[in-house]
Amino acid sequence: MASTFGTLFRVSTFGESHGGGVGVVIDGCPPRLALDLADLQHDLDRRRPGQSKLVTQRDEADRAEILSGVFGGFTTGTPIAVLVRNNDHKSGAYEHLRDAYRPSHADFTYDAKYGFRDWAGGGRASARETIGRVAAAGIARRLLHEVAGVEVLAWVSSVHAIDAEVDPAQVSLESVEAHPTRCPDPDAAARMTEAIEQARHDGDSLGGVVDCIARGVPKGLGEPVFDKLDADLAGALMSLPAAKGVEIGSGFSGTRMTGLTHNDPFVPGPEGSIRTATNHSGGIQGGISNGEDVHVRVAFKPTGTIASEQTTVTRHGEATTLAARGRHDPCVLPRAVPVVESMVLLTLADHWLRQRALDVLPPLPERP
Amino acid sequence: MASTFGTLFRVSTFGESHGGGVGVVIDGCPPRLALDLADLQHDLDRRRPGQSKLVTQRDEADRAEILSGVFGGFTTGTPIAVLVRNNDHKSGAYEHLRDAYRPSHADFTYDAKYGFRDWAGGGRASARETIGRVAAAGIARRLLHEVAGVEVLAWVSSVHAIDAEVDPAQVSLESVEAHPTRCPDPDAAARMTEAIEQARHDGDSLGGVVDCIARGVPKGLGEPVFDKLDADLAGALMSLPAAKGVEIGSGFSGTRMTGLTHNDPFVPGPEGSIRTATNHSGGIQGGISNGEDVHVRVAFKPTGTIASEQTTVTRHGEATTLAARGRHDPCVLPRAVPVVESMVLLTLADHWLRQRALDVLPPLPERP
Amino acid sequence: MASTFGTLFRVSTFGESHGGGVGVVIDGCPPRLALDLADLQHDLDRRRPGQSKLVTQRDEADRAEILSGVFGGFTTGTPIAVLVRNNDHKSGAYEHLRDAYRPSHADFTYDAKYGFRDWAGGGRASARETIGRVAAAGIARRLLHEVAGVEVLAWVSSVHAIDAEVDPAQVSLESVEAHPTRCPDPDAAARMTEAIEQARHDGDSLGGVVDCIARGVPKGLGEPVFDKLDADLAGALMSLPAAKGVEIGSGFSGTRMTGLTHNDPFVPGPEGSIRTATNHSGGIQGGISNGEDVHVRVAFKPTGTIASEQTTVTRHGEATTLAARGRHDPCVLPRAVPVVESMVLLTLADHWLRQRALDVLPPLPERP
Amino acid sequence: MASTFGTLFRVSTFGESHGGGVGVVIDGCPPRLALDLADLQHDLDRRRPGQSKLVTQRDEADRAEILSGVFGGFTTGTPIAVLVRNNDHKSGAYEHLRDAYRPSHADFTYDAKYGFRDWAGGGRASARETIGRVAAAGIARRLLHEVAGVEVLAWVSSVHAIDAEVDPAQVSLESVEAHPTRCPDPDAAARMTEAIEQARHDGDSLGGVVDCIARGVPKGLGEPVFDKLDADLAGALMSLPAAKGVEIGSGFSGTRMTGLTHNDPFVPGPEGSIRTATNHSGGIQGGISNGEDVHVRVAFKPTGTIASEQTTVTRHGEATTLAARGRHDPCVLPRAVPVVESMVLLTLADHWLRQRALDVLPPLPERP
Repeated sequence: MASTFGTLFRVSTFGESHGGGVGVVIDGCPPRLALDLADLQHDLDRRRPGQSKLVTQRDEADRAEILSGVFGGFTTGTPIAVLVRNNDHKSGAYEHLRDAYRPSHADFTYDAKYGFRDWAGGGRASARETIGRVAAAGIARRLLHEVAGVEVLAWVSSVHAIDAEVDPAQVSLESVEAHPTRCPDPDAAARMTEAIEQARHDGDSLGGVVDCIARGVPKGLGEPVFDKLDADLAGALMSLPAAKGVEIGSGFSGTRMTGLTHNDPFVPGPEGSIRTATNHSGGIQGGISNGEDVHVRVAFKPTGTIASEQTTVTRHGEATTLAARGRHDPCVLPRAVPVVESMVLLTLADHWLRQRALDVLPPLPERP
Repeated sequence: MASTFGTLFRVSTFGESHGGGVGVVIDGCPPRLALDLADLQHDLDRRRPGQSKLVTQRDEADRAEILSGVFGGFTTGTPIAVLVRNNDHKSGAYEHLRDAYRPSHADFTYDAKYGFRDWAGGGRASARETIGRVAAAGIARRLLHEVAGVEVLAWVSSVHAIDAEVDPAQVSLESVEAHPTRCPDPDAAARMTEAIEQARHDGDSLGGVVDCIARGVPKGLGEPVFDKLDADLAGALMSLPAAKGVEIGSGFSGTRMTGLTHNDPFVPGPEGSIRTATNHSGGIQGGISNGEDVHVRVAFKPTGTIASEQTTVTRHGEATTLAARGRHDPCVLPRAVPVVESMVLLTLADHWLRQRALDVLPPLPERP
Repeated sequence: MASTFGTLFRVSTFGESHGGGVGVVIDGCPPRLALDLADLQHDLDRRRPGQSKLVTQRDEADRAEILSGVFGGFTTGTPIAVLVRNNDHKSGAYEHLRDAYRPSHADFTYDAKYGFRDWAGGGRASARETIGRVAAAGIARRLLHEVAGVEVLAWVSSVHAIDAEVDPAQVSLESVEAHPTRCPDPDAAARMTEAIEQARHDGDSLGGVVDCIARGVPKGLGEPVFDKLDADLAGALMSLPAAKGVEIGSGFSGTRMTGLTHNDPFVPGPEGSIRTATNHSGGIQGGISNGEDVHVRVAFKPTGTIASEQTTVTRHGEATTLAARGRHDPCVLPRAVPVVESMVLLTLADHWLRQRALDVLPPLPERP
Repeated sequence: MASTFGTLFRVSTFGESHGGGVGVVIDGCPPRLALDLADLQHDLDRRRPGQSKLVTQRDEADRAEILSGVFGGFTTGTPIAVLVRNNDHKSGAYEHLRDAYRPSHADFTYDAKYGFRDWAGGGRASARETIGRVAAAGIARRLLHEVAGVEVLAWVSSVHAIDAEVDPAQVSLESVEAHPTRCPDPDAAARMTEAIEQARHDGDSLGGVVDCIARGVPKGLGEPVFDKLDADLAGALMSLPAAKGVEIGSGFSGTRMTGLTHNDPFVPGPEGSIRTATNHSGGIQGGISNGEDVHVRVAFKPTGTIASEQTTVTRHGEATTLAARGRHDPCVLPRAVPVVESMVLLTLADHWLRQRALDVLPPLPERP
C-alpha cells in the first residue's frame, strides 16, 4: 500500500525513472464521467521536463496512454490504468552513482531499506514518479469540476529569499502560467528567474514555497479524527519529493497571534449561508472544510542535485566526491506547481466521495 | 476508517467528551510484549487536565482500564482495548452552545458534515479524544524501546513570540518535565508562564510550537511513495487538534538556504557506519529514515476557546455573541507535548513493523 | 486489521472469553440513524448462552452498553463503541487446558502463532467473540431496513443427517423462532432436538448447515473483481467459528447441472423491471446483486468440544487425554443463526454504502 | 480497492477483455527476490486460450511485460507492474450484445451498477481479468518457494457428474499436466473429455470442482478473527468468475460426521513436532494453519456462454433470444486450475508476510 493513496478515489502509482515506464491505476473513480486523454495530458505537459529553460532539459514527451476503464469517452467505474513510457533514458550516465551516495538524496536510504537499489536515474525516488500522480489528478480535477465546481490552483510564492506578493483571492491560472516560474507576481518572477539562472551558473540550487488554494470546496469534507482534511492534505503534500514543511491557513505565523485575533468570526453570508469574516483557518475547522477557500503552503528544499563537487562516501563507507552530470533542475519550484495541485485534487476527490458515502440519511426533523 | 491510524500497528479511537468514555483499540501489536497498565498511565497523566495551574482545571483522573489483549502481563497479539471513563461531565454547562457556533471551533463544520452534532462538550472534536492516542502510544513506546531502543521526546519551543533556546541533541525528559510549561529553557519557560497567565487574565489565548525528536530510529523506516516516513508523520501530526503546520528538519527555513549549504554531506561514522555531517534532512531522506535523529516541529494555533466575548452566528444564521464559560486551556502547548510524542510513536511503531515485514530475504551476494 | 471488517461500514471487534469484556467499534455508520439499545440487544439475546436447554448453560446476560457515537437517540457519524462485560468467568475451570491441546480447537495454532496463549476459556477463539459482530449487525440491520427495506433471515436447514424442508420464499422470522432449534420445519426440528440431546448424552456433538436469504437487496451491490458481493459474503461467513463451507445459490450441486438448465433466463418483470425466471445464481451475477433474493449456505462442523475422552498431546509433545468439563454446546447450529445473519448484514451494509459512494454522477443521456 | 487483494503482498489488477491490455501492480513484494519473466509466463501459458482443443480458441499469446520493480534480475521492493496486451480483439463480434443481456452473465448487473457497460467482450467481467492474478501469483509462488518451500497444486476433481479418484497426498504437477483436462485420474479424465466435447456439440456447457492443496505451509499463518486463513481463502476463491461454492477440509460433508470422528487427534510427530492423525480441518484450525496440508475445494458452475439459443430480455425489458457466437469454453475447469492456484498463492504469500510482521519479539522465558 506504500504506493497507494486514498480511500475511495484510490490511486496506485508505479514505475521508475529508467525502465518500461511510469504510470498509475485509479480504482474507485465513479462511472459516467466524461474523460478525454487531454484531461490528463494538460497537467502532464505542465510538469514535464524541457518545457522552459528554467527546468531540466531531459527530453521526455510524457505522452499518456489510457489502458483500461474508459469506454466510449466515459469512465466505466472499473480501474483506469494509465501508462507513460520512458524514452530518454541513458542509464550509462548514472554509472558513477552505482556506489557513491549523493548527499541529501535517497541513494543511501534506499540501500539501507532494500539492501540494494536501482541506481539508474534515481529509480523510484526520481521526480518522474510524480507523473502517475499528475495523470490521476487530471481525472480528479474533471470529477471535482463536474460535481462541485471546485477549482484548485497553485503558484510559486517564494524562491530562496525572494517573496512574491500575491492575493490568493485574485490569482488566476492565466496569471500563474504567464511566466515560466509560475509566480504570478511579475516583478518577483523576474527576480526569481535571475536567481535560478545564477544558481545554475554557480552549480548550486534553490528551494522555495508553493501556495495552493482550492475554491468552491463544499463544506463538510474531512473526517475526524485521523483522516481530517488538513491531516490528509499534509500527508499528501509531504509525500512530494523535496517537501520539508506544510502549512494550513495561518500555519506557523499563526502561532504569533492570539486567540482574539486568530479566531475567524462567523458572519451571516448571502442567501442564508454562514461565512467567516477572516480565514486564518485556511478553510478547515476541526478537520472539516467550512466552505471558505482551502489554503495550503508547501516548503521545498533546494534541489539536492547540484553541479558543484560535494564530499560524500561510497556504500563501503569510503570518502569520495561527486558532482552532478547532465540534466537537472536548479530549482524544482516551477514544475512543482502542477504536482502540488495534483495532491490537493486527489485528496479532495477522495473526501468528496467519502462524504457522499456518509451523507445518505434524510435530515432530522428536529435536533436533539 | 476515519478514526483508525496505521497499517500494521493499527489504532482505532472512539469516544466523546461527554458520554460513556473514551478509548482505543490497538490491533496488530506483536505478542509477547511485557505490558503494564503503568505503561499507559504515565503519559495519560502527562496530558490530563488539572495537572498544573497552567492548564484547564477540569477534574478528570483519566484512569485507564485494559479490557482485552493482555494476559499474564504480556500482550497476546489480539486487539488491546483500553477504556477511560468520563467522570466530570456537566453537559448542562454547554446548553448555550446548542445553537451558537464557537468561532474557529468544529461546531459549524460538524453540523455541516453530519446534519447535527453532540453539542455537549465538543463531542468528538474535544481534545479529550487524544486520550486514546496517548494510551496506544504508551504501548508503542514500550515496543520501540524494547526492539530498537528508540526514544521519543518533545518539548515546547515557543509560545506566542517567546522562543526557547534548546539544543535538540542535549534535551532530556527531565529537563522537559522540570517545568509545567514543558519548555526545557528555564528562562523562556518563566516568560511563557507569565504570558499564559496574562492571556488567561485577558480572556485571550496563545499558540506556539512543539519540537519533537526521535533518537535511535533505525535507518530504513518509511515507504515510498505515499507512505514516506515524513508524509505519515506530517499527516499524523496535522491530525492533532489545533495543529496548523508541520516541518521536518529544516522545514520552511530551509527554503532560504541553497543546495550547497542545505545538503547533508555523508561522512564515515564509527564502526563502518555512514553518518551525515549535518541534519537539515531531519533524519529522513527520500521518505526513509537515515539513522540520524528524526526531528519534527508542529505549529499549534492559539486556543479557540476564550473567555472574551466574540461575535458569531447561530445555526440559523442569526448574529449573536459568545464567551467561554467554565474551564479551558489558555494555551494547549504544555499538554500538547505528550500528544505530539504519541503521534510520532504510533507512526514509528507502524513503520518499524512494516519494515520487518519487508526485510525478509537474505542479502544479495553480489549487487546488480 | 485482523479484527476489522468492511470498507465503509467498518467494524472492529475486541475481547476474550475471560477478561474485562467483549465489544466492537463501528466506524463509518452514517449519521442521523435512529438507534436504540434494543436494536442491538435483540439479536444478542438470540445468540446468548442459556436461552434454551439445547445450548450451553453458561450464564451470561450479555447486556450491551453503547459508549459513544449516539446522541439523543441518533447516530452522530462518529465511532460507535459497544461493550459487553464478561460475568460468568471461571478461569479455574480451564486450568487443565493450560498445556493440553483440545483436538480441532485453536489451542495449538494460537500457540504456534503467538508463542503463548490466553488459555482461560478459549481467549479470542471463543465463540464469545461473535458478540461484537452481532451487536454491530443490529445497527446494520436498522440501517438496511431504513434505507432499502432489506430483510435478512437465516435458519437451520440441516443437523447431522437430518435435512429440513424449507421454502426460502416462504420462511419467516416467526417460523424460525418458533422452535429452539431455529429450524422452521417442525418435523425436522423435532428430530434435530432428539439428535442433539442424544449427542449430548453420548458425549458427542453435531454439525449442520445454516441457510440465509436477504430479501429486498437492491441490484448493483458488489464490486468487481476481488470485492464481489459473493466473495465478501464467503469471506465473512467462513470467518465464523466452525464454518467449513460456503455456497452461493446453487453451490456445489450446481456443478451437476448443465449450462442450459443452470442459466437463469431473464424475463420482463412488473413495472418495467427485469427479473430472472429461476435463481440458481443466488441473487448475484458477476459478483453484483441482481435484485433477486441473495441466498447463501454455511456448513458448520460438529462442535470440537465434547465430553468424551479424546487422545491428544501437550504443548511439549507428550501424549495425553482430555475430556471437556462444564458447559458447552453439543450443536452450535441454533445459536449460529443470528451470527450468520450478522455477517450477511455487515457485508450488505458495507456494500450498500460503497455503491452510494460510486453512484454519484447523472445517467448518461445516450450510451456509447 | 475493489480490484485490490491482500494486506502486505498487495495485488491490484486492471484491464478489460478489449482495450489496451490487462495487467497487475504488485505492491509489497519483498526486495531481493530473484525474478524472471518466465516465473510469470509459465502459469500464464497454463491459463491462456487455445492451449488445447478443450478450451476456447481465441488466439492470445498473453506475453507479459514487466514494466517496473525489477532491476538486474531481482525485485527492488517497489511496485512491480506487469502488462499483457490484448491482441485478438474483435469487438464487432459483440455488437449483438449491446442491448441484450446474456443469461447468468454480468451484463445486466453491470448495467444496474454502473448505468452502462463496456459491452465489447465482457469488459471487466471477462475471464481475461484473471491474467493479472496469475501473473502476480507467479511472483508469490517464487517467494513462497524460496522462503518456506511451499508448493501449491490444484486439479480438476469433477466435471458434471464425473468424479475423479485422486489421493491428495500423492498428486503431482506432472500427473495434473499429463492430460488437457488437468484431471490426474486418467480414466476420469478420458470421460471428462468426452463429456466436454459432447457438451460443445450440444451447444451446452459443464461445471465441476477444482481441488487445491498447499504443502509445506508453516503453522501459524492466518489472523483471528476476520482475516482467518480460511476466511481469506474463501473470499479469494469465491471472487473467481463462475465460482459458487468453497470448502475447507471436510466442508459440507463434514456436517454429516459427529465430533468424535471429525475431530483431528493431535499426535507426536517426528523431531518433537506435533501433527494431527487426520486432516478434516484441512490444515486450518481457529483460522490459523496447523502445519498440515491446506486443502480447499471450489465449485464452478457450468459456463454461462452457450451456443444454444436462450430466451432473455434487452436492457429495455423486451423479450428476445440470444445464442453465443464465436469462441468460448464449454467447460472452464481445465483453465481454472492455475487460476485457483493463483488465489491460494496470493493468500498464502500475504499471510506469510503478515506473520513475519507479527512474530518479532523473542520467546517468553516462562509462560503465564
